[in-house]
Amino acid sequence: FECEGPCMRTEVPGPKSKALQKQLGEMQSVMSVNFFCDYEKSRGNYLVDVDGNRMLDVYTQIASIPIGYNHPALIKVMMNPQNMSTLVNRSALGMLPPKEFTGKLGEGLLSVAPKGLSRVQTMACGSCSNENAYKSIFIWYRTKQRGHSDPTPEESTTSVINQAPGCPDLSILSFMGGFHGRTLGCLATTHTKAIQKLDVPSFDWPIAPFPRLRYPLEQYERENAQEESRCLEEVEDLITKWALKGKPVAGIVIEPIQAEGGDNHASPEFFRKLRGITKKHGCAFLVDEVQTGGGATGKFWAHEHWGLGDPADIVSFSKKMLTGGFYYKDSFQPDKPMRIFNTWMGDHTRNVLLSEVLRVIKTENLLEEVKQSGKVMLQGLYELQEKYPHLLSKARGLGTFCAIDVKDEDTRNKLIIKARNKGVVLGGCGDRSIRFRPALVFKRHHTHLFLNIFNEALAEF
Amino acid sequence: FECEGPCMRTEVPGPKSKALQKQLGEMQSVMSVNFFCDYEKSRGNYLVDVDGNRMLDVYTQIASIPIGYNHPALIKVMMNPQNMSTLVNRSALGMLPPKEFTGKLGEGLLSVAPKGLSRVQTMACGSCSNENAYKSIFIWYRTKQRGHSDPTPEESTTSVINQAPGCPDLSILSFMGGFHGRTLGCLATTHTKAIQKLDVPSFDWPIAPFPRLRYPLEQYERENAQEESRCLEEVEDLITKWALKGKPVAGIVIEPIQAEGGDNHASPEFFRKLRGITKKHGCAFLVDEVQTGGGATGKFWAHEHWGLGDPADIVSFSKKMLTGGFYYKDSFQPDKPMRIFNTWMGDHTRNVLLSEVLRVIKTENLLEEVKQSGKVMLQGLYELQEKYPHLLSKARGLGTFCAIDVKDEDTRNKLIIKARNKGVVLGGCGDRSIRFRPALVFKRHHTHLFLNIFNEALAEF
Ligand code: FES
Repeated sequence: FECEGPCMRTEVPGPKSKALQKQLGEMQSVMSVNFFCDYEKSRGNYLVDVDGNRMLDVYTQIASIPIGYNHPALIKVMMNPQNMSTLVNRSALGMLPPKEFTGKLGEGLLSVAPKGLSRVQTMACGSCSNENAYKSIFIWYRTKQRGHSDPTPEESTTSVINQAPGCPDLSILSFMGGFHGRTLGCLATTHTKAIQKLDVPSFDWPIAPFPRLRYPLEQYERENAQEESRCLEEVEDLITKWALKGKPVAGIVIEPIQAEGGDNHASPEFFRKLRGITKKHGCAFLVDEVQTGGGATGKFWAHEHWGLGDPADIVSFSKKMLTGGFYYKDSFQPDKPMRIFNTWMGDHTRNVLLSEVLRVIKTENLLEEVKQSGKVMLQGLYELQEKYPHLLSKARGLGTFCAIDVKDEDTRNKLIIKARNKGVVLGGCGDRSIRFRPALVFKRHHTHLFLNIFNEALAEF
Repeated sequence: FECEGPCMRTEVPGPKSKALQKQLGEMQSVMSVNFFCDYEKSRGNYLVDVDGNRMLDVYTQIASIPIGYNHPALIKVMMNPQNMSTLVNRSALGMLPPKEFTGKLGEGLLSVAPKGLSRVQTMACGSCSNENAYKSIFIWYRTKQRGHSDPTPEESTTSVINQAPGCPDLSILSFMGGFHGRTLGCLATTHTKAIQKLDVPSFDWPIAPFPRLRYPLEQYERENAQEESRCLEEVEDLITKWALKGKPVAGIVIEPIQAEGGDNHASPEFFRKLRGITKKHGCAFLVDEVQTGGGATGKFWAHEHWGLGDPADIVSFSKKMLTGGFYYKDSFQPDKPMRIFNTWMGDHTRNVLLSEVLRVIKTENLLEEVKQSGKVMLQGLYELQEKYPHLLSKARGLGTFCAIDVKDEDTRNKLIIKARNKGVVLGGCGDRSIRFRPALVFKRHHTHLFLNIFNEALAEF
């Protein structure tokens, strides 16, 4: 089914990509377009472009392809007329769900629900997943404050015109380097690059430092623990400060590994202690697994690595899960209709495809494969950083969710292009990191292939 | 292809819907679920439920089904392996678009671009369309203010931590009764029901009154013109006030017909004058066609009824357009990459389906059909409100985008349920209106059928 390896015919972007980009440039911004793809010809771990180049894909549409390109199981499931009908007749899932909806949620999303979370709301992307998770948190917090969910007449009237007490001054605490989406609520908790936020009005919400650890983690346990303590203290300080400001922290949002922000890790203990702090101060704990969820860390959810005694309150997801959404505890379900609502409330076709993806993950034992490939990958990255200490540092990862730092941004960008012209698609993150985000079908031999080509690219510097 | 008429076997929701709803209630909130559907059996204007009831659909998944259920053209186009491959391999459209993308945008979205707008950015739903339209407006406004788009070091630093000047205190002016989505940015411009906004923090942005006109419009031209003047004056006052507050109005957002807010109309002149005010004060003019766009008013875009001399700056869409997105003028395209960006940037499969929908609209001359059906519908509603003056008032509409008021909320809700049990699916809006939102394939005979059943339901009060 899959191909033998990369096969390059032109530089990338090649002439056909360039021509299409020029045309598209008449219609919209194309400043972020890399090249145009032939998705029909792409297979497994190989992405084929419009110029006929076949590349090993270690970026997978910004970490969103779960089991490789054109998996036969996915094509087959869409040939089922019932599934085709939910595709061409998109349902308003919150009002008129298809008859298969309940069953698919059960065999799909709920079959992989994180421990302690028995309910799930589908959404359509990572941003609306987090936006609605935040709204659920605010509603939960105010309901807790007033002891019930019935607003006063004043709350009702003021809410319609954006004023307190109906629209209260509550906040979500987030972390420097965190990324949770780009709609205005999410963007107020995103702190990666200036250009993503510049010129857009925001909320005055508290931002805590995320631990800046030394790698490999095992080697710097003591320093790292100190750094984590410092950050946790700051979290508590901020909660107190914002309460005094009259903008209490209703919830804390965090990624298990800060992805866009540069693949920054923290220890399981850090997260367990953070969970304790949220409990102590009565804030909700929201784990954003939009990029980490779906198996790439070797467990289905990255936060399963923490051994939390007390589960998270909400876990949001998207990307590899194909549909967006969030799992939540009972107490986070509003007791009135239409509070968490929109036209489509997700996309049932994506639930159908996800069920199939989950079946493949189980039958092909892909989480185990990820652990194996991840070991090879991290070991290989350690070796490369030893071989090229002037270029590489801080190899790190969980499963195949790995990254490495390059000496500066410019070199990082050049390295990505060099690798691409040798047949490997990579993506950057943070200021000068490369993140590796293969699909779950990335086997050990793909890892070796990738490491060899990456080595060749490095050797040219 | 289509069915003969409604055919009811049980009350709705029937026993199968109720059982599924109970099961689903263990997994998520089901307070807004009406009934479960059999989309495979649904045809054209008829929605079939899981209990085998066949209903004439005059609500169409909250106004989002363009050419009826299971249109053969849509099923056929998805059988094309190329299209199937863009479905199962969802592309990060902003980075790695499929080779067909440029062509589909040209033959699809851009073939129906509103006058004066030559560029389009796809998004995935109405909310991200408006959120990103707002961001484009803020970026445009600040770029204009500083004379270029290069931030100072202070702007860069402060933007990452949500503070001015990087995140400036700019505002979007919206209207009471307007609805633009439910993510936090959109929600700050939405002013329909308290329950949609309660407990969620918001922005201090100005809210102008929307004209409350008397219907039929032709009969009350003078009073209505006065009411519209009052609202326009208020708009100018608010712009001045918010400038003094240090939160200048960067843009104004408005629906051509306030839909969720109760199908509130205003005259073409009102909108033309509003456009003039935005020009005068240097604010962007954003027309939200999420619900009105796609042909239901008898023109492809509702704002084409205005005869604007100077085009809107941005027009957002979703629902019947299948994909979300917004058209914009050149000057609203940021000059740096990744400012308007997210993982998927829409969904190419929806572009493919939209192209087919547009082809059907043209070849079947559906805009003309909508005009014809709309005339019959509005005439029928006038007759019904004359027959039931104690129950109905304010029949109004453009094309088949019609509505009528019912004497109170409770009666409205009962009427909707009564009609449903007689085989017609309707939806409410505002406090006590019913909105009619059939697909574009709703012909004159469907309209007669609907009016007859609606009459029967009314007779029972
Ligand atoms: S905000 Fe998620 S799809 Fe639009």
